[in-house]
Amino acid sequence: MNLYAVIMAGGSGTRFWPASRQKRPKQLLTLTGERSLLQQTVDRLGPLAPPERVLVVTGSMHTDEVLEQLPELPPENILSEPMGRNTAAACGLAAAWVARRDPGAVCLVLPADHLIIDEALFLSTLGRAAELAAEQKVLVTLGLTPRFPATGFGYIETGEVADPQPPVISQVAAFHEKPDLATAEEYLESGRHLWNSGMFAWRAEVLLNELDKHLPELSRGLAELSPSLCGPGQDESLECVYPDLPSISVDHGVLEKSSCLRVVKADFGWSDVGSWEAMSELWELDHHGNACREGKEQIHAVDSHGNLVSADGRLAALLGVKDLVVVVTDDVVLVAPRSKCQDVGRLLDELKVKGLEEYL
Amino acid sequence: MNLYAVIMAGGSGTRFWPASRQKRPKQLLTLTGERSLLQQTVDRLGPLAPPERVLVVTGSMHTDEVLEQLPELPPENILSEPMGRNTAAACGLAAAWVARRDPGAVCLVLPADHLIIDEALFLSTLGRAAELAAEQKVLVTLGLTPRFPATGFGYIETGEVADPQPPVISQVAAFHEKPDLATAEEYLESGRHLWNSGMFAWRAEVLLNELDKHLPELSRGLAELSPSLCGPGQDESLECVYPDLPSISVDHGVLEKSSCLRVVKADFGWSDVGSWEAMSELWELDHHGNACREGKEQIHAVDSHGNLVSADGRLAALLGVKDLVVVVTDDVVLVAPRSKCQDVGRLLDELKVKGLEEYL
Repeated sequence: MNLYAVIMAGGSGTRFWPASRQKRPKQLLTLTGERSLLQQTVDRLGPLAPPERVLVVTGSMHTDEVLEQLPELPPENILSEPMGRNTAAACGLAAAWVARRDPGAVCLVLPADHLIIDEALFLSTLGRAAELAAEQKVLVTLGLTPRFPATGFGYIETGEVADPQPPVISQVAAFHEKPDLATAEEYLESGRHLWNSGMFAWRAEVLLNELDKHLPELSRGLAELSPSLCGPGQDESLECVYPDLPSISVDHGVLEKSSCLRVVKADFGWSDVGSWEAMSELWELDHHGNACREGKEQIHAVDSHGNLVSADGRLAALLGVKDLVVVVTDDVVLVAPRSKCQDVGRLLDELKVKGLEEYL
Repeated sequence: MNLYAVIMAGGSGTRFWPASRQKRPKQLLTLTGERSLLQQTVDRLGPLAPPERVLVVTGSMHTDEVLEQLPELPPENILSEPMGRNTAAACGLAAAWVARRDPGAVCLVLPADHLIIDEALFLSTLGRAAELAAEQKVLVTLGLTPRFPATGFGYIETGEVADPQPPVISQVAAFHEKPDLATAEEYLESGRHLWNSGMFAWRAEVLLNELDKHLPELSRGLAELSPSLCGPGQDESLECVYPDLPSISVDHGVLEKSSCLRVVKADFGWSDVGSWEAMSELWELDHHGNACREGKEQIHAVDSHGNLVSADGRLAALLGVKDLVVVVTDDVVLVAPRSKCQDVGRLLDELKVKGLEEYL
């Protein structure tokens, strides 16, 4: 089985502003350790896919930075989307690219901006998902065992168990949108609901067939693109065809309609690193619950508790403050209570109103 | 009358840390406008004393920065103290320097790190103080009309009025140390107590005579220094003699003992710029009471009130925070409630304990 890793790096989230910017989204940031989330994602997949079989789908605005961060990848393995067209198009593009080389190969699709705690379990789980995708003509989705009643993720309801050996493989009974808290609590208790992770495994030709069945317009666009993929005309062809592709998620557009689905239950520690607040679980805390990026900066706290600091290498001197997020970049300093740091979008909306786009 | 301005720039305060550092004390900082407090002090005195008659007494650690900030001053007008020996020695040194040139000249002694609101009134008040010092053999001190019951300043109790024309000139009845709040309130009500400003006027020879009378050891040291002052041996001589000078304030050592004292009542708006908190009166506030250095940086506040920011040119994005002081420098970010920013010394004490002297 030939395995290709397809890394979805098209995000442009704002929740790590001001560290994340339009030109430097979250996946390109170094939030833990020495490497960016994207680089860590590629590193982590090393045992499964060597650089020549790693694809990165990203926005054309970020291509240069991706090339710089991943010099080991052949440049044609960076697929530059001229604009976002959601995940069905991105997955389809990658599958079409892989199919040009090796139609029977399996694509492992992974977000660029997640953190994984237990990498060995991550690799063995993905390996099992890839095997399943190679053996059977199925679309495989990974479902994460929920740790709390999250309202920020979609859920996958599992059906009949196909293989009880860990990682457990099941039929998919249903997909559920982000629930309210009461529903999320029911899901958590049921034992049958898993977080929809955005990680998938499928053979390139299997996904292309399913796209043809459920999203024929996208399928036609990909057929038009196909001859130029992996070659020098790739970028030009994308510029030409991409704007007219339908914009829909692979979940809505394909998975929810498909009859050949499996879900693999994943138990490796995982974080989608959703906001600065999430760093309280990922950074090492001092005795007073303050945290910063270890090795990058240090906190000097007096009467201060529960603060999260990203200070671009500075000493963070905290005197009598608690539960704040403090972020310093070249041109911005952000101060907010941890509880409000998910509202950073409000700051950005008002920056737009003031015409201060250079800070977005 | 020849008038010399003697600017006392020996301070090494910590209350503007991390902007102020051991190598860059408050008087060398630009906290308002385009010029440092020291530069503003020299600029303001222009109508009274041209550069060749401005002396700056500073610590040798700061001499280079002072020379750089005041290129218009002849280098021999910078008097470098090898170590601090309090204000009696500094005033005596300047008087000895002036006496070498012109024994009858008047010295106006002024701190380098104050801000003055009404500069015209400042100049006319100082002019009157200098006249008085020139006409009579008296030591003249300026007393500021108190605006609130300050516990952070010493007070001058006025005696018999010598000239009721503004600025009112009086005898000095007594000097009082920093009072407790109840006493400060009594002082404020009495109408007879003025803040001790650290601003003085005297003829060089009059001060030297008084030093000879009340601080003979200091007087002998100054006599030893005198031949080398204003000449190429000045610095070397200071290195040699200064360490043995007694360390005492001019208030304690001379003024409180002298029988030839006058106080001039000063009513120009004044600030000793005592801490970041003081900037709330000196910076322009936005509609929500947030303030930064105008023209240097800007505040973008959402649900945020009463914050003071010095962000080294950055945009300060404040979301849901109030009454904080936020200071960003090349290597430090400080966050503290405004009410605590006078305790910044505690942070510095603990930095020393941790061996992080490079941040002091």
